[in-house]
Amino acid sequence: MSQSTKQAPLFKRFLAIGVGLIGGSACLSAKKQGLVGYVLGYSRRFETSHQALSLGIIDECISDASDPNLRSVDAVLLSIPVRQYEAVLRQFLPVLPANALIFDAGSTKNDVSLVVDKLEHEFPGLKARFVGAHPIAGGEQNGPKAAVAGLYQDKTCVICADPKTDISRKKLVEKFWSALGSKLVEMDPLDHDEMFGAVSHLPHLLSFAYVSSVLEHPKGAKFMSEGGAGFRDFTRIAASSPEMWADIFQNNDKALLSLLDNFEETLKQWRSAIQNKDRKFLDQALKRASEYREGWPNGHV
Amino acid sequence: MSQSTKQAPLFKRFLAIGVGLIGGSACLSAKKQGLVGYVLGYSRRFETSHQALSLGIIDECISDASDPNLRSVDAVLLSIPVRQYEAVLRQFLPVLPANALIFDAGSTKNDVSLVVDKLEHEFPGLKARFVGAHPIAGGEQNGPKAAVAGLYQDKTCVICADPKTDISRKKLVEKFWSALGSKLVEMDPLDHDEMFGAVSHLPHLLSFAYVSSVLEHPKGAKFMSEGGAGFRDFTRIAASSPEMWADIFQNNDKALLSLLDNFEETLKQWRSAIQNKDRKFLDQALKRASEYREGWPNGHV
Repeated sequence: MSQSTKQAPLFKRFLAIGVGLIGGSACLSAKKQGLVGYVLGYSRRFETSHQALSLGIIDECISDASDPNLRSVDAVLLSIPVRQYEAVLRQFLPVLPANALIFDAGSTKNDVSLVVDKLEHEFPGLKARFVGAHPIAGGEQNGPKAAVAGLYQDKTCVICADPKTDISRKKLVEKFWSALGSKLVEMDPLDHDEMFGAVSHLPHLLSFAYVSSVLEHPKGAKFMSEGGAGFRDFTRIAASSPEMWADIFQNNDKALLSLLDNFEETLKQWRSAIQNKDRKFLDQALKRASEYREGWPNGHV
Repeated sequence: MSQSTKQAPLFKRFLAIGVGLIGGSACLSAKKQGLVGYVLGYSRRFETSHQALSLGIIDECISDASDPNLRSVDAVLLSIPVRQYEAVLRQFLPVLPANALIFDAGSTKNDVSLVVDKLEHEFPGLKARFVGAHPIAGGEQNGPKAAVAGLYQDKTCVICADPKTDISRKKLVEKFWSALGSKLVEMDPLDHDEMFGAVSHLPHLLSFAYVSSVLEHPKGAKFMSEGGAGFRDFTRIAASSPEMWADIFQNNDKALLSLLDNFEETLKQWRSAIQNKDRKFLDQALKRASEYREGWPNGHV
């Protein structure tokens, strides 16, 4: 954390919609930094918000939008699957103060822009008070139990603000993630989705599809009981949350499918080099990929 | 190591053909265990065997097959790319004692069987004294400097003996790898190649091809400077030795291309599910792959 002493809260009454690994860790870290006063928490499943309460992640559970405590909330953090944004915002926006800041932590960003665009007609001014972000942190464990203060320390947080976003709102959100220890990067939502399509969504898709193809092999179970170190690393990411990844693949379909086209084109070249015993191609292509990979900074995000 | 006191050497005069990570580590470990008496070392490049000498991996450098010291060698370990076996064996077999044990540490095994089959006509009895093995160990670093005693401790070593292999020779080789701490598994060469095609060669191919496709993307350099944790793990294996992997892809082409067919078929299904927004397929397929992957033992090889 950037400061050891508590600061004046950025937000007096904070509503966390989603209190799992991402939202829960944001609450724990924000509480530790004194960024938030009183924290309300909402989850689709009441057991989840109740668990977050008992773990000290939130101070009070909200069961639905009829709760009068919502009327004095000054900021809302959405940490739920992006596909639930529209329904949840329609449910909560009518009861939240009309100037409450809304920000999010979703893994895809153009779909979030489209939801906010769509809701702007019903809730004029929403675009000005909505700030999209993608904190690049996570893990294979999910739910409130997996939440930890410090999850965002030294991680990158991509801010995707709309040209219509209030500068002051954006600054508040930047202050929030900075205080949790994140390094900020600003990106256009489409650029964000293309980049993360390339560095995260495509490798996840390949890893899931690879595990799936081994699983369908008649000797899959036998193969599974063996396997080298490369196998483990390559497929570790396939143990991630299925629901979250189904959302991501669905919501970033355009960028992902275009990147998949490139990958399949490359794979076709490699396949034909193996088929045609084109050793020169294999040597050059492997050398290039290997040198490129070796040059990557290992400590980064 | 399985014993703390030195045992009587299994091999009095040992020839290591290849003294890099694999061969060098075998020599260091075997010396530590007292399995080998005097160790001769040969490498394509004289600098390499000289380096191995200075690191204490071998006791003497052999520059070529004319060296009279070869005449009293009782065992030879091949730890060089499999594609070099035929030429190297043709060079050394005429000068080595006709009863010298030959064993190997190559990552593919059916191609090794074919080389031995082919050379049996020129060197009758070779099959009886050749024992194929694949110790499942390695790393991203190569060469004598990367060699360490203990590399094979608690690793799996697959023994692929021919029905014509002398039982006594096979037992010697099993004793050798066991004494280095390896757990032995016996497999048919074709089964070995299919299994390692699935658990090692295919994921390496996908990882190399993936890095290559990012590299060809106009924004590849930008993507490279970012990237999440999944990206790093997924591509870590693409930093492995290009030459070794070109050999493996070329030598295990049949099994690999058949596994690649399965993978591409699976990927096609996933692609069409993403294109058609088939959420049910995505949910089920992701859940299945994720559960399957979670069930894998993390401590294994």
